[in-house]
Amino acid sequence: MIELFQVNKLISAALDEDIGPGDVTTQSILDGSELGRAAAIAKSDLVVAGMDVFKAVFLFVDSSLSFSGNFKDGEKAPQGETLAEVSGSLSSILKAERVALNFFQRMCGIATAARSFAEAVKGTKAIVVDTRKTAPGLRILDKYAVEAGGGRNHRFGLYDGVLIKDNHIEAAGSITAAISRARQKAPHTARIEVEVKNIDEVREALCAGADIIMLDNMRIEEMRQAVFLIYGKALVEASGNISLDNVRGVALTGVDLISVGALTHSVKAADISLLVKRT
Amino acid sequence: MIELFQVNKLISAALDEDIGPGDVTTQSILDGSELGRAAAIAKSDLVVAGMDVFKAVFLFVDSSLSFSGNFKDGEKAPQGETLAEVSGSLSSILKAERVALNFFQRMCGIATAARSFAEAVKGTKAIVVDTRKTAPGLRILDKYAVEAGGGRNHRFGLYDGVLIKDNHIEAAGSITAAISRARQKAPHTARIEVEVKNIDEVREALCAGADIIMLDNMRIEEMRQAVFLIYGKALVEASGNISLDNVRGVALTGVDLISVGALTHSVKAADISLLVKRT
Amino acid sequence: MIELFQVNKLISAALDEDIGPGDVTTQSILDGSELGRAAAIAKSDLVVAGMDVFKAVFLFVDSSLSFSGNFKDGEKAPQGETLAEVSGSLSSILKAERVALNFFQRMCGIATAARSFAEAVKGTKAIVVDTRKTAPGLRILDKYAVEAGGGRNHRFGLYDGVLIKDNHIEAAGSITAAISRARQKAPHTARIEVEVKNIDEVREALCAGADIIMLDNMRIEEMRQAVFLIYGKALVEASGNISLDNVRGVALTGVDLISVGALTHSVKAADISLLVKRT
Amino acid sequence: MIELFQVNKLISAALDEDIGPGDVTTQSILDGSELGRAAAIAKSDLVVAGMDVFKAVFLFVDSSLSFSGNFKDGEKAPQGETLAEVSGSLSSILKAERVALNFFQRMCGIATAARSFAEAVKGTKAIVVDTRKTAPGLRILDKYAVEAGGGRNHRFGLYDGVLIKDNHIEAAGSITAAISRARQKAPHTARIEVEVKNIDEVREALCAGADIIMLDNMRIEEMRQAVFLIYGKALVEASGNISLDNVRGVALTGVDLISVGALTHSVKAADISLLVKRT
Amino acid sequence: MIELFQVNKLISAALDEDIGPGDVTTQSILDGSELGRAAAIAKSDLVVAGMDVFKAVFLFVDSSLSFSGNFKDGEKAPQGETLAEVSGSLSSILKAERVALNFFQRMCGIATAARSFAEAVKGTKAIVVDTRKTAPGLRILDKYAVEAGGGRNHRFGLYDGVLIKDNHIEAAGSITAAISRARQKAPHTARIEVEVKNIDEVREALCAGADIIMLDNMRIEEMRQAVFLIYGKALVEASGNISLDNVRGVALTGVDLISVGALTHSVKAADISLLVKRT
Amino acid sequence: MIELFQVNKLISAALDEDIGPGDVTTQSILDGSELGRAAAIAKSDLVVAGMDVFKAVFLFVDSSLSFSGNFKDGEKAPQGETLAEVSGSLSSILKAERVALNFFQRMCGIATAARSFAEAVKGTKAIVVDTRKTAPGLRILDKYAVEAGGGRNHRFGLYDGVLIKDNHIEAAGSITAAISRARQKAPHTARIEVEVKNIDEVREALCAGADIIMLDNMRIEEMRQAVFLIYGKALVEASGNISLDNVRGVALTGVDLISVGALTHSVKAADISLLVKRT
Repeated sequence: MIELFQVNKLISAALDEDIGPGDVTTQSILDGSELGRAAAIAKSDLVVAGMDVFKAVFLFVDSSLSFSGNFKDGEKAPQGETLAEVSGSLSSILKAERVALNFFQRMCGIATAARSFAEAVKGTKAIVVDTRKTAPGLRILDKYAVEAGGGRNHRFGLYDGVLIKDNHIEAAGSITAAISRARQKAPHTARIEVEVKNIDEVREALCAGADIIMLDNMRIEEMRQAVFLIYGKALVEASGNISLDNVRGVALTGVDLISVGALTHSVKAADISLLVKRT
Repeated sequence: MIELFQVNKLISAALDEDIGPGDVTTQSILDGSELGRAAAIAKSDLVVAGMDVFKAVFLFVDSSLSFSGNFKDGEKAPQGETLAEVSGSLSSILKAERVALNFFQRMCGIATAARSFAEAVKGTKAIVVDTRKTAPGLRILDKYAVEAGGGRNHRFGLYDGVLIKDNHIEAAGSITAAISRARQKAPHTARIEVEVKNIDEVREALCAGADIIMLDNMRIEEMRQAVFLIYGKALVEASGNISLDNVRGVALTGVDLISVGALTHSVKAADISLLVKRT
Repeated sequence: MIELFQVNKLISAALDEDIGPGDVTTQSILDGSELGRAAAIAKSDLVVAGMDVFKAVFLFVDSSLSFSGNFKDGEKAPQGETLAEVSGSLSSILKAERVALNFFQRMCGIATAARSFAEAVKGTKAIVVDTRKTAPGLRILDKYAVEAGGGRNHRFGLYDGVLIKDNHIEAAGSITAAISRARQKAPHTARIEVEVKNIDEVREALCAGADIIMLDNMRIEEMRQAVFLIYGKALVEASGNISLDNVRGVALTGVDLISVGALTHSVKAADISLLVKRT
Repeated sequence: MIELFQVNKLISAALDEDIGPGDVTTQSILDGSELGRAAAIAKSDLVVAGMDVFKAVFLFVDSSLSFSGNFKDGEKAPQGETLAEVSGSLSSILKAERVALNFFQRMCGIATAARSFAEAVKGTKAIVVDTRKTAPGLRILDKYAVEAGGGRNHRFGLYDGVLIKDNHIEAAGSITAAISRARQKAPHTARIEVEVKNIDEVREALCAGADIIMLDNMRIEEMRQAVFLIYGKALVEASGNISLDNVRGVALTGVDLISVGALTHSVKAADISLLVKRT
Repeated sequence: MIELFQVNKLISAALDEDIGPGDVTTQSILDGSELGRAAAIAKSDLVVAGMDVFKAVFLFVDSSLSFSGNFKDGEKAPQGETLAEVSGSLSSILKAERVALNFFQRMCGIATAARSFAEAVKGTKAIVVDTRKTAPGLRILDKYAVEAGGGRNHRFGLYDGVLIKDNHIEAAGSITAAISRARQKAPHTARIEVEVKNIDEVREALCAGADIIMLDNMRIEEMRQAVFLIYGKALVEASGNISLDNVRGVALTGVDLISVGALTHSVKAADISLLVKRT
Repeated sequence: MIELFQVNKLISAALDEDIGPGDVTTQSILDGSELGRAAAIAKSDLVVAGMDVFKAVFLFVDSSLSFSGNFKDGEKAPQGETLAEVSGSLSSILKAERVALNFFQRMCGIATAARSFAEAVKGTKAIVVDTRKTAPGLRILDKYAVEAGGGRNHRFGLYDGVLIKDNHIEAAGSITAAISRARQKAPHTARIEVEVKNIDEVREALCAGADIIMLDNMRIEEMRQAVFLIYGKALVEASGNISLDNVRGVALTGVDLISVGALTHSVKAADISLLVKRT
C-alpha cells in the first residue's frame, strides 16, 4: 500500500519539473474554459499498477477534474482497453498528461514484467522478489509495482534487513566473522542473510547460522546441490542474471526466493496513450 | 552540463531513501575504521555518462573519500574496463555503493542507447532527440545522459518550447487556429512546433506558418513526401515508434530530427559492478 | 496563468516569515471567536493582478474564511473601489492581512506600471516585455503581473531562451562566433537572440543569422536605422534605460519589442488597504 | 547581521528559478574552460548593502571563483566605482550574474533610500524605521539593508512585537480594552505599541499605559501636540505617507521614530552592472 | 494558538520517520477494509494539551477518519477518562497511533507539569514561565503546552527578546556596558532583561536601566532583598534549579516571574493509551 | 552511527527555530570581532552521547570555530568534568549555545538513563531495548543515544519489523490468524514478533510460530513461567511499566529483551552548562 502523503511529494516535484513557470503551449492556445474528456488506452497487453498515482496527478493539478479508473492494480488489461477516464478542464488535463503517464507507464511496465516472472515460476515453491536497484527517489513506487505485478518485496533499504554481500565478507575477513558480528550487533528483529558463491561457502554460512542464504550467480546444478544441503535450515535465495529465459529452471532447483534486479533497473514502460476529446 | 547544486538534492533524497535510519549490515559488521578501495567495472561495453554524479554520491556520504574517474562522459568504455576508483573508509564506500550505481547505471544505460541511435543515423542529416518521457524527478539527469551519448535534447518541459500536439489541435478546433493563437500569445523567443498525421495536415501547418513540423507515426513514403513539401520552410521532426531497426530508414527520408521516447522511458541499465578490496 | 500548487509554496514561506511562532498581538487581544468582514480598498487608481494569490493567502491561513473578488486580473480599478471582501474569523483575517497585501500590492503595482507602458506604445507595432530583473524567488508572480498589466513576458530564465549578451560575445570572441556556436548546440526549439551596440554589430548579427536582434542602449536615430536594415529578417528588440518618458519615441522607430527592467526591479507597490469591521 | 545558512536557502531557490535545467546560452557558446574577470560597477551613487550575499551567489554556483569586495555594507559608493570583482570560470560568472545582481541591486537600492531618509532627519532625535511591508520571502534581506543604510528595524513579524492597529481596536472594542488584554496576555518581554488617529486617542492610550504610541497619518500640528502630551511617558512613532519631502518636518515635531513603508514596498533597484573581460 | 499549517510540517516529518516505506505489520495482517473505533484513555490524572495535534495526525494519515475530542486543552482529565475517540479504517488508525500518541503524551505531560507549578504558586503574584530549553524542532508545541497548562511563555527564540546573560556580560565587559549597548541597538519594541548573580549586580542593573532583572540561582533571602530593592522599577524573574519543592518559597519572595527549564527539557510523558475495537 | 547529512537537517531546523531573523541580544551587544572560548561542563555525572551533534551545531553556525571533545560517546563523565571546548568568535558561540546544548543534554540524558538500566541487568542474559516512543522528528538521535548508553535498538519504525500488538490481534481475530497472515505476506527478511498478555496466549503464539514473543505487563511469576515454556523456541521480550526499581527482577526471569519506553518518552536532560570566557 502506498501512503498518498508520500506520493504527493513525488508528484509535486515531477510537476514542478515538467510545468516549471507554465505550460506555454496550452496557455497560448486555450483560454482555460474548454472542457473535455480523456481516455487512457492500453496500446498493448499490460498489468495495471499505480492507478491511484495516475489519478492523483490529475487531481493535484486541478482538484475539480473527475476521474474514474476501470481497473484495479494487479489486474490484466488487454490491448485496446480504456484503463481510466478523466474529464473536466481541458487545460488541466493537458498540463497533467505527461507527468501522469510517466508515473503510470513506468509502474504498469514494472508490474507487467513482474507478472511475467511470477507466471514463469508458477507451480514451483519459488517467489520472485525485487532488489534495491530502483530509480533514485522512486523506490516506493517501483517496489509497489513489483508487488502489484505478483512479485514480492525484498528489503526496502539498508535499514530494514541484514544482507551480507561479498564486499562485506571481504571487509570482515570471512563469512563466519561477518555473520557472528551481525548476530551480536544487528537488530534482534532482523533475519540475517548472506551471499555465497559456491558450495563451500554454503557450508560455512550454514555453520555460522545464517537465516537466509543467497546463491550468487551459481550454475543450476550447484544451486540444486545447495538447496539439498540447506534444506530446512535456512531460506534460499537465487540471484544474478536472472531472465525470463532462465527463471523457471532456477525455480525448479527448489530455491525459496529469486531476486531479479532487471524488474526495476531496466524497466520497459507500458504503452499507454491518452486520447482527448473536446466536449 | 549539470549544476551540482541541483544534483545534490537528488542525491540527498536517494540516500535518505536507501540508508534511512542507518545501514544495519555495515554498522554491525564493520567498526568504521576499515579502509579499502573499490573499482567500478564495466561488465559490458557502454558509453559513460554521469561520472560527476557517481563521484558526488560517494563524496556526499563521506567527503574524505578519494575518487578518480578514468573516463569522461561521452567516452566509450569496453567490457572489463575500470571506469573509476574510490578509496577510503570501507563503511562509507559500502553505504554509498548502491545509490551511486543506481544513478550511474541508469545514466550510462541511457547514453549507451543514445549512442546506438546516433551511430545508426550517421552520415544522414538527422539528429536524434529525446522527449519528456523521463523518470519523474530525474529529467535533468536523463536528458544530460542523452546528450552525453550523442543525442540532442528536445524541450525540457512544458515551459521552454511550444509543441502543439493532436490533443491541442482537438482543443483549438484546427491546426490553423492553434498555430495562429500560439503565434499571438506564445513567447517571442520560442519557435512553434506542430504535430501532424498526414500530408494534408503538413500543408495546413506550412500555410499556418509552423517553424517545426512533427510527423507523427507516418509511413516512410509519406515522410519522404512531407520532407519534399516542407523543404526549407520549416524543420522536420519524425516521431512515433522509432527503434534501432527503423531509425536509419527514417533518417534517410531527409528529416532534421528524430525523437525517441524509448531513450528515457525504457532504459536498460548499463551493467556495472563495484569490486571492493580491503586495504 | 499561475499554478496554485506553486504559489502555495511561496505563500507558506511568507506566512512562516511573518507569523513565525504566533501573532502575539492578535492572540492576546482576541479570543478567536470574533467575526468580522474586511474590504480591500484601492487608495489610488490601479490595475488588478494577483487576485487569486490575495485570496489564497487568506484561505491558507483559514480555509473557513469566505472571499469574494470584485475585479478580474487586468481590470482597472479606480481609487476608492472595493477590490475584494473577506469575512469570517477576525483573528484569521488579521493574521493573513499583511502577507496577503504584500503579495497583492506588489503584483498590482507591477500591473499598473505595465499598463502605463502598454498604453504609451498604443498604436505602434511595439510590445512591451519584461526581463529577468525580478525579486529573487518571486519571478513567477512578477512576470504574471506584467502580463496581467498588458505587457508580455520575455524568457523566464536562462533555460528557455538563447540570449547572447555582450558578456557572451566577449567570451566567444565575436558575434559571428557566438551565434554560430549557439546555432549548432542550442535547442532547436529556441530562437537565437543577440545583443548589439551599434549598426556594424547589427550587420554582423544579420549575416550570422540571428533570429532576434536586441539594440542595447542605442540612440533613437540609430534604432531607426537598425530597424530599416533588419526589416523582416529578424525581430528587433530595444533595451536599456527605457522609461515612460521615452518609450513611445522608441516604439515609433518600428522595433517589435521593448524590454523594460524597471517593470520588476523597481516596483512601486499599489496603494491598497484593508478596512476591517467587527460583525 | 545575516546568518549565511539562512541566506543560502534564498540563493538556492533564486538560482533554481533562474537557471532551471541549465543556461542554454552559456552552455552552447562556452565550453567551460574559458576564464575571465568581472567587475561590478556602480552606475550611479549608492549605499552598499548585501556584499556578502552578492559574493555568496557566485560561490554557490562555483566555489572555485575568487571574489573581492571593495566596499563594506553601509559605505557610500560614488558612480563609476568598482564595487567588487570576481574572477575564474567565465561560464560560472555568467550563470550567477543575474541572480547575484538581483539580490545586490535590491539591497543597495533599499540601503540607498534608507540613507536618504536617515540624512533627512539628521540632527533631530527621530530615527527612521522600516515596516513589515517587504517582498514576500525576502524580509530578512530587506530589513538588513534598511539597517545597513542607516535606518533601524521595527519588529520582524507578528511574533516579536505587540502592535495594536486600528483593526485590532475595532475588534477589541476600544483602545483601553485592547491594551489591557495585551498587558495581561502578551509576553512580558514585549513593549506594547498602539496606533492612534487623533489627540483623544493619544490620551486614552496614555491612560491605558501604552509603551509606544504610533501616530497614524496625523497632521504636523497634531503630532506636535501629541508629542507634547506624551512627553517621556511613552515612545512616539509617526507613521503613514512619509516621504523624503515631508520626513524632516515630521522629525522636527519631536517624535522618536518614523516608520516608512516605502523603504521596502517600493524599492528602486540600485543601478549596478557587471563588466566581464575574458582573460 | 498553534497555526495548523506549521504543525502539519511536523506531523508529516514524524509520519515519514515512523511509517517510512510502509507499515509492514498492518499491511500484512489487515486488508484495509476493516473498520474500528479507538479510545484514547488517560492512565493517570493529566492536563490536556494538543488535542488538535492529536486529531490532525489521524486526519493526516486518512482524512476519512472521524474524530471527537472529549476535553479542551487546559482541562484536567482524571485517570480512566476517555480523552478522545477516533473511528474508521482500522489500518489507518493503527498507522497513526504511535505518532499521534508521541505528540499528545509529550504535550499533555508538559501541560500537567506546568499546572503543578502554576498551582504551587497560586495566591502569590508570581507567574511560571518556560525557557528555550525545548526539544529541537518542537518548540512551538512545547511552549503551547506550557501555556495550556497554566504557565506563560518567555521569549520564543533569540529574535524576540533581549536577554543579557552572564556570557554576554563577560563578552561586553560589564552589566552597564551590555545594557547601554543593548538600549542603543536593540529593537525599540523589546524590553531589556539582564541576568544577575548577587545584590551588587542587581544595583548595577537597576542603575543601567534594565526593564527586567533575572535573579540567577540566588538564595531565597537574597531574592527577597533584590525584590525589595527593585520594587516597581523593573520586573523581577527568578531562575535556576526551580523545582516543585522550592517554587512556592521562591514565589513568596515577591518575584514577578519564575522560569523553569525542566518544564520542557525534562518532560515526563503523560500516560495515555489507545484502546482499539474492531466494529 | 549517525549520518551527518541527516543530522544537518535537524540542526538547520533547530537553528532556524531559535535564531529566526537574528539574535537581537548578541547583535546589539557584540560587534562580531570578539573572541572567546567556551567549556561545556558536566554539572552532574553523566554518560556522553551526541558529541558529534554538539560539535556540528557550532560548526553549522560558524565553520571557523574550533572544537575539541574530551570524551567519546558512551564514556562516563563525572560531575565537574569539561566535556568539550569550543573557541573562536564569541558571537557565533553565543548564537549556537542553546541549540547545541538542547541536542546534547537530551542525548546525554538518554544515554545516562540507558546506562543505568544496562547496569541494573548486568550479569543476566537480558538486554535493554528502546521503543518507538521518541520525540517526533528526533528518533534517529534518541535511538542513537540509547545505544551509546549501552542499550540496544528495537525496530526504528513501522517499516523495519513486524510487531503484532493487541490492537492488531483484535483486528485480525486471533493470535493465530495474525501470525499466519504475517508469515504469508510480511517481508521474508523480518522476524515476526507478537505481544501476549498471559500464558494461554504464550502457548498460542508458540504454536503459531512466532519468532519473538513479547510479554506485556505480566507479573514476574508469569514471566518466569513463560520463559520456561518458550525456552529456545523464540526470543522473549518483557514490556510494560519497566523502571529501574523492577528491571533486575524482570531480567532474572530469563527474558532475552526488556523494552523501556521511558528511556525516550520521559527524558531527563543531563545537566550541562557552557562557561564562556572572552580572550
